[in-house]
Amino acid sequence: MAIVTLTSDFGTSDGYVGAMKGVILTRAASAVIVDIAHDVSPCAIAAGAYCLAQAAPYFPPGTIHVAVVDPGVGTERRAVIADDGRCLFIAPDNGLLALAVPEPRAVFAIESPAFVRDQVSATFHGRDIFAAAAGTLARGGSPRDAGPQVALSPLPVTGGQTPHDGNHTAAWLYRVIYVDRFGNLITDCPGTDVAAHARITAGTCTIAGLSRTFGDVAVGAPVAYIGSAGTVEIAIRQDSAARVFGLGPGDPVHITE
Amino acid sequence: MAIVTLTSDFGTSDGYVGAMKGVILTRAASAVIVDIAHDVSPCAIAAGAYCLAQAAPYFPPGTIHVAVVDPGVGTERRAVIADDGRCLFIAPDNGLLALAVPEPRAVFAIESPAFVRDQVSATFHGRDIFAAAAGTLARGGSPRDAGPQVALSPLPVTGGQTPHDGNHTAAWLYRVIYVDRFGNLITDCPGTDVAAHARITAGTCTIAGLSRTFGDVAVGAPVAYIGSAGTVEIAIRQDSAARVFGLGPGDPVHITE
Amino acid sequence: MAIVTLTSDFGTSDGYVGAMKGVILTRAASAVIVDIAHDVSPCAIAAGAYCLAQAAPYFPPGTIHVAVVDPGVGTERRAVIADDGRCLFIAPDNGLLALAVPEPRAVFAIESPAFVRDQVSATFHGRDIFAAAAGTLARGGSPRDAGPQVALSPLPVTGGQTPHDGNHTAAWLYRVIYVDRFGNLITDCPGTDVAAHARITAGTCTIAGLSRTFGDVAVGAPVAYIGSAGTVEIAIRQDSAARVFGLGPGDPVHITE
Repeated sequence: MAIVTLTSDFGTSDGYVGAMKGVILTRAASAVIVDIAHDVSPCAIAAGAYCLAQAAPYFPPGTIHVAVVDPGVGTERRAVIADDGRCLFIAPDNGLLALAVPEPRAVFAIESPAFVRDQVSATFHGRDIFAAAAGTLARGGSPRDAGPQVALSPLPVTGGQTPHDGNHTAAWLYRVIYVDRFGNLITDCPGTDVAAHARITAGTCTIAGLSRTFGDVAVGAPVAYIGSAGTVEIAIRQDSAARVFGLGPGDPVHITE
Repeated sequence: MAIVTLTSDFGTSDGYVGAMKGVILTRAASAVIVDIAHDVSPCAIAAGAYCLAQAAPYFPPGTIHVAVVDPGVGTERRAVIADDGRCLFIAPDNGLLALAVPEPRAVFAIESPAFVRDQVSATFHGRDIFAAAAGTLARGGSPRDAGPQVALSPLPVTGGQTPHDGNHTAAWLYRVIYVDRFGNLITDCPGTDVAAHARITAGTCTIAGLSRTFGDVAVGAPVAYIGSAGTVEIAIRQDSAARVFGLGPGDPVHITE
Repeated sequence: MAIVTLTSDFGTSDGYVGAMKGVILTRAASAVIVDIAHDVSPCAIAAGAYCLAQAAPYFPPGTIHVAVVDPGVGTERRAVIADDGRCLFIAPDNGLLALAVPEPRAVFAIESPAFVRDQVSATFHGRDIFAAAAGTLARGGSPRDAGPQVALSPLPVTGGQTPHDGNHTAAWLYRVIYVDRFGNLITDCPGTDVAAHARITAGTCTIAGLSRTFGDVAVGAPVAYIGSAGTVEIAIRQDSAARVFGLGPGDPVHITE
């Protein structure tokens, strides 16, 4: 009884997600299908990668994770199965797996006819390749039979951590990497790197010191804390920091000791 | 272990979908409930019909599909079970099944008390009739016991394919029938009817020739292609054709050889 | 094979819901996870309470319901398991269970390490406490082992039913308590309290008499009826009464015989 999770930008108003589920259940009647999220922003590979990476580690060993955010569908980009020694991940090879599978043990291109539908459209590989491959794995197929071993593509770089020391202060530059539904700004600054009394600055927002949680500040006040992903987050209690400060992915965050 | 799919316009913020799932599981504890989509536009029967038709064919034989987009709830419109010889479909008889079940083998009105809850409200047949009937079928009930055979109602006509030959050119008129989450415009023009070099015109959008997939054109460029449903679609790579061209369901699409 | 339902304000674009599902399945591999709704308005405890109360009664006995709308995460508010003698409910003790479990038989604080993850973050108790507790119960744990018995907190009061008799007419004051996806206004006025010919007034909306269902009035006309929850609702056929009349939770509704 294999668990198959689904993460996509297909939304919850069209038939795309349903078609994928039907293909999986047709190949593996006893598969347990679990929705992670389907409202990833359209074509937002980095957001999909982050979403998957926040959920996948909590599933049992042997889980098959399918992720589809695929603006390059039908082009030369590969379809792959990545094995991290614990779970299997199926996705287009466009960086979508970079955060959830930072160190794959093996990655296989999906080329075998047994892993795809008889007819493969040029615009819906979610149904014709990724769901079919998931069904094949869920009924006991081996990823080694999918195709040759390949390397996994990285997430396109859109910023990164750089020391910012021009003015001789101990300020470090990080980035907002994700905005969640609540408008919380998730950064790439590891919580272990920040002192409790650090000053966090992003756009017009300045926060002195880390709190434990939202409730430590007044309703409507900004707050910085080590989030559930282990990195520094910036929020406004019961409001959206993204909206109020006009910040989003890629925007710089300065941390001063 | 019956599979029961759900398609509705009930959204993902209210308790309606949950109540339906509870009713199904109360009647058939081992039913496998699969969400197709619940954010069909409120009361948009044609959109729900299209959504279901895109997903249902990919499910295994014996699947029970429940669809609820039901602006006429509580009026004289029938509740029905349609059998296409492969799967069962439960819905209000308002055209919602017209695309997924174009040629039903048999259609039964839901009238038997065994197929509905003891108390049937006038405004939530999703819970009191459609989910209850699904539960009864999922635990082995026969659709023949639901009620008398009836005919299935068609989808209300809102346009249609008409030859447009007033000016003696070989131009054909089709329609946009659906807009998906990405703003792609799905037409009712079968891909088999269109030459690769055809000219596609809709509103202010003119496209010369069909492409294979989005990635065949530049980011931001319009593109026409045979979609995963087998009909011509018009899109903009990584943008919304519906928004940019201001087009939606019912709008005309001209195909010129 | 325990059923575990999920209701939250985590949305369908982030990894939060997926992380919860992973934690549950890691602890109870055969749990059947059922989504009720995840787009409850962020931090809207009353809306979440109403959503859960509309769905929970329809699930089979023994169902484990998990609800997370938790603006006070990480503060002193308790995490609890409420037992109503039929089902178990897991939630932050902030009023979220007040409508679904009006008369709990027993309520237990979640304090035992066996009911939470080894590491408990300060901002994501959905994953680290509520999902973990659900997994522990789903694999056979007893709520009595979670922690000491406590009392359940009520929903913060935001209005209420008050007789409005200053002008010597038999008018009664009720409130809008919920707006659903369709913009229907759900009130706290029990259907059993209202005569069929009553006059319903809310803001600029006046309706003479109750109808059975939407279809009893013209498209675009306002309509009042006894809703599927048993209370008076105000709607506009195929439009949003909330938007047209500018009404929402807490707004007064006058009922005159």
